[in-house]
Amino acid sequence: MRLSFDEIQGEIKRVYVKHGMEAKKAEVCARIHTETSLDGIYSHGTNRVPRFVDYLKKGWVDVDAEPVVEKEFGAIKILNGNMGPGILNSIFAVEQAMGLAEEYGIGMVGMKNTTHWMRGGTYGLMAAKRGYIAMMWTNTESVMPPWGGKDCRLGNNPFVMALPGEENPIQLDMAMSQYAYGKLQVTRLAGQKLPFPGGFNKDGMITDDPGEIEETRRILPMGYWKGSSFAFMLDILGSVLTDGIGASDIDKIQKGSCGGASQVFIVIDPKKITSEDKMFENIKKTIEHVKSSELAEGSNGIMYPGEDYVKAREVNTRDGIFVDDSIWNEIKSL
Amino acid sequence: MRLSFDEIQGEIKRVYVKHGMEAKKAEVCARIHTETSLDGIYSHGTNRVPRFVDYLKKGWVDVDAEPVVEKEFGAIKILNGNMGPGILNSIFAVEQAMGLAEEYGIGMVGMKNTTHWMRGGTYGLMAAKRGYIAMMWTNTESVMPPWGGKDCRLGNNPFVMALPGEENPIQLDMAMSQYAYGKLQVTRLAGQKLPFPGGFNKDGMITDDPGEIEETRRILPMGYWKGSSFAFMLDILGSVLTDGIGASDIDKIQKGSCGGASQVFIVIDPKKITSEDKMFENIKKTIEHVKSSELAEGSNGIMYPGEDYVKAREVNTRDGIFVDDSIWNEIKSL
Repeated sequence: MRLSFDEIQGEIKRVYVKHGMEAKKAEVCARIHTETSLDGIYSHGTNRVPRFVDYLKKGWVDVDAEPVVEKEFGAIKILNGNMGPGILNSIFAVEQAMGLAEEYGIGMVGMKNTTHWMRGGTYGLMAAKRGYIAMMWTNTESVMPPWGGKDCRLGNNPFVMALPGEENPIQLDMAMSQYAYGKLQVTRLAGQKLPFPGGFNKDGMITDDPGEIEETRRILPMGYWKGSSFAFMLDILGSVLTDGIGASDIDKIQKGSCGGASQVFIVIDPKKITSEDKMFENIKKTIEHVKSSELAEGSNGIMYPGEDYVKAREVNTRDGIFVDDSIWNEIKSL
Repeated sequence: MRLSFDEIQGEIKRVYVKHGMEAKKAEVCARIHTETSLDGIYSHGTNRVPRFVDYLKKGWVDVDAEPVVEKEFGAIKILNGNMGPGILNSIFAVEQAMGLAEEYGIGMVGMKNTTHWMRGGTYGLMAAKRGYIAMMWTNTESVMPPWGGKDCRLGNNPFVMALPGEENPIQLDMAMSQYAYGKLQVTRLAGQKLPFPGGFNKDGMITDDPGEIEETRRILPMGYWKGSSFAFMLDILGSVLTDGIGASDIDKIQKGSCGGASQVFIVIDPKKITSEDKMFENIKKTIEHVKSSELAEGSNGIMYPGEDYVKAREVNTRDGIFVDDSIWNEIKSL
């Protein structure tokens, strides 16, 4: 079905308040989930609400906890997320990082002991809409084998880069696995194959059959050895730059996906470096350059990073935000 | 053949001095090329010397130019590389960034108008050996088609992340294409196929035949659409964060590979965040975690990022540094 922004936000807010969250905080979390669905990322929008409620019920997320600044030095702040709601923690962290960027040109916030931030891009867009450039990532529990190994030992560690655009921010929001487990499931349920191989089957062969990969849990890192090494770096830097922990310890916490994770927020103020006009001119030039290529066989067009969200937002704004019927019924029942 | 460090460095220094470089500067450049070969990255070690000399002869690199600080704000400095030797420019930039990290915890140097930095990892290792954490990248001319397109419109934009290790630094040094053109050539000359598909053939089919890809120049970004978007972000952020230029303008400069490129150096001082003991404990834990996985079929082992360089260095230190005979003869003749 397709629903209005307000209807979805209101319903999610109702559910979170019912499960103990302060009304003002519930409104913010509900807005972020709704904006996420608006941008077409249903997995961390409406679809994620039941799981978050489950985490609240189990005490895996501390509904009342608030982040605190534990350490400050120059353009760096280290926060303890105190296992509070990931969305609220990460909003606080990016606000702090923007403040540092305003003062020093660049600022970094490292936050340990937090919970799932839902859509990573939320925080990149937040910064970009306020005129900042952002590089951010989270580490996660082990969900992907390292290159050369069979067992899950690396997180998918979503990595975000964003910068302001004249109309819309430019944004990369990328997990380290070639495909998310959600994509494998959706593809299997549709009786389809993946567009490109996504993991190994039980005989150790690379396959595009989603069900075979779900069985082994041997998903491929993007770019094989490259994504494996990148995921390793994001994990270890996540722990060191926050005075926090990495995948091997997150695995032991057992408080759901990303329970206890570490997040890094680097924010830069481009106004300290270049003029807004020159920045927008550079962006325009780069987009035009990329789009001037002849299209490949069967291409749906060449998109700049984040353009797919803009397109989804247009459709969902025009027609109402898509919500899966069964998910909506589940949210109503919570 | 295998030669000593001093013999290689001495010979490269002789060549660079002969082509107009000040002795002290030539000694530094020669050392970096030699260290690069020592770590097994021959493409940007000895093998690169003839091309650099060619650039000097053509005036594409200004042998006497030095970088200058054009703008400063808080923890940010913007440099103009003045088209000087890329190695010397980048060493200057990372020194400046380490100084900022010392003062503010984090620092960023954006350098525009520079030339090829050779092995990007050089500067990550430099920072890591001094106890810092580094994130760095360069943009380049267009060498790779964007996802959905046929024509080269993106750089391969090497991206570096490094942190100190107890014995050896941990380091990622990764270009955005799945394979370098050099790898395609070497594989073709050996009559082999690539281990995984690396690009498109003239019929628009994905192929592991290196010669077919060299023909179309349609190399694959690592992780398909993911590497394409990442390369886009590194290009545009390279230009904005340096007040410099991106691939579309680098293409027009026509002063060889990376002539006029922009480089970003973000350096962080972990001592402001965590204790050295805790950092090394986290690193040890992460390496042990990853290596505790059962090996995959036909695996050569699971390596941490940068471990391959350590292994190459051991062999080249023990047996002498490998140099291709014809390359050595060419260097001698320069």
